[in-house]
Amino acid sequence: MDSDKKTVLVFSDDLDKALAAFILTNGAAAMGNEVTMFFAFWGVNLLRRPSGGMPAGSRAPGSVARMLTRGPAHLRLSKWNLGGLGPILIRRLMRRANVMGLQELITTAQEQEVRLVACTMSLDLFGLSEKDLVDGVEFAGVATYFEYADQANVNLMI
Amino acid sequence: MDSDKKTVLVFSDDLDKALAAFILTNGAAAMGNEVTMFFAFWGVNLLRRPSGGMPAGSRAPGSVARMLTRGPAHLRLSKWNLGGLGPILIRRLMRRANVMGLQELITTAQEQEVRLVACTMSLDLFGLSEKDLVDGVEFAGVATYFEYADQANVNLMI
Amino acid sequence: MDSDKKTVLVFSDDLDKALAAFILTNGAAAMGNEVTMFFAFWGVNLLRRPSGGMPAGSRAPGSVARMLTRGPAHLRLSKWNLGGLGPILIRRLMRRANVMGLQELITTAQEQEVRLVACTMSLDLFGLSEKDLVDGVEFAGVATYFEYADQANVNLMI
Repeated sequence: MDSDKKTVLVFSDDLDKALAAFILTNGAAAMGNEVTMFFAFWGVNLLRRPSGGMPAGSRAPGSVARMLTRGPAHLRLSKWNLGGLGPILIRRLMRRANVMGLQELITTAQEQEVRLVACTMSLDLFGLSEKDLVDGVEFAGVATYFEYADQANVNLMI
Repeated sequence: MDSDKKTVLVFSDDLDKALAAFILTNGAAAMGNEVTMFFAFWGVNLLRRPSGGMPAGSRAPGSVARMLTRGPAHLRLSKWNLGGLGPILIRRLMRRANVMGLQELITTAQEQEVRLVACTMSLDLFGLSEKDLVDGVEFAGVATYFEYADQANVNLMI
Repeated sequence: MDSDKKTVLVFSDDLDKALAAFILTNGAAAMGNEVTMFFAFWGVNLLRRPSGGMPAGSRAPGSVARMLTRGPAHLRLSKWNLGGLGPILIRRLMRRANVMGLQELITTAQEQEVRLVACTMSLDLFGLSEKDLVDGVEFAGVATYFEYADQANVNLMI
């Protein structure tokens, strides 16, 4: 176990939880930590390409994958949605407080060499393929998550 | 602290979170870890007997315990319920992707000698008795949780 | 890393999750652990002064801060709200089972010298000032969270 390794297991695709996950990750990375984020279940949606349609080569069967949120720009809050107003309000508050938006936080994580790993079982579950996710993502299962977690001294789940 | 011990604290009884908890647990157990799951608050509902009615000897006062979800077959999702369609859809997706159902995941956990511990304070809170839970469950409080967590190197909460 | 240090990162301001966070914290503290609670995002609302109005000197702009829950007495459940009946029912069940209420749990945490730290970025986000929170709270950012987490052997997030 190394005191400079961390993992963040991202189960949720709620906007507020995604922001928290990336703010924690980027903070830890800025302090010199090697951080691995593992995206499982709804969390894989955070890494979906921003394109509206399904990319060519996707084996997403449409009906299911289309019902899920598609990437950072389309997320809802875990609460306080206020009929769609909540996410708009949070984004406005973030700009006012100079907090980075989610897309910017993801880019910063990648610039800081945070490892982004998507759970292959979750992709299978939702009928998504590796091509549906943004570039620079690794693909692995639960065993890989625990290999990283075993080496880290802080393992968060959200 | 041992690198082959893990704990998973299950606070939620949402179907999606329960699946994640047991998939992580069973994965860790398959890798040779001793895993303890501690079920607190809503989480104790995951361990309720599948029988519809209250078993004889239960001191569940009915009105409250009846309002809570009763075991793996009756869970809702943390989101995307779609008026009851969501859980049906997720179960269908799971079969298609060859992911075990929750009941099967619980059985596998028990076969792998995962320790299932139900929080006695939570049982008290909901007016449930030990007899309301499935066989093979241990009963303990928060102090026992930390005894296991202190020995583990990965402690997750969902 | 010390086996007698713990951190609890409180992201949520749901009543049920707040109760779980403080019951775990107080349990760990009673066992001799030094516990640091870090309140981020919605979690900062748990520490708001119980007063209905904004205190003098608050720079909360009203419109946003007024929409958020104000302190322990006003929380909702993460589920099972039942149109406002859920929180009342949970509080009744807690009294019946002799479980402390949230305000009492917070007071007990402070008596046990649990460190309560509020995330300054979250306060900024919601337009809250340090004066809006109860006495005895410290203020810090993500780097401070990881300083405490690095020293602890159990780090929970809820």
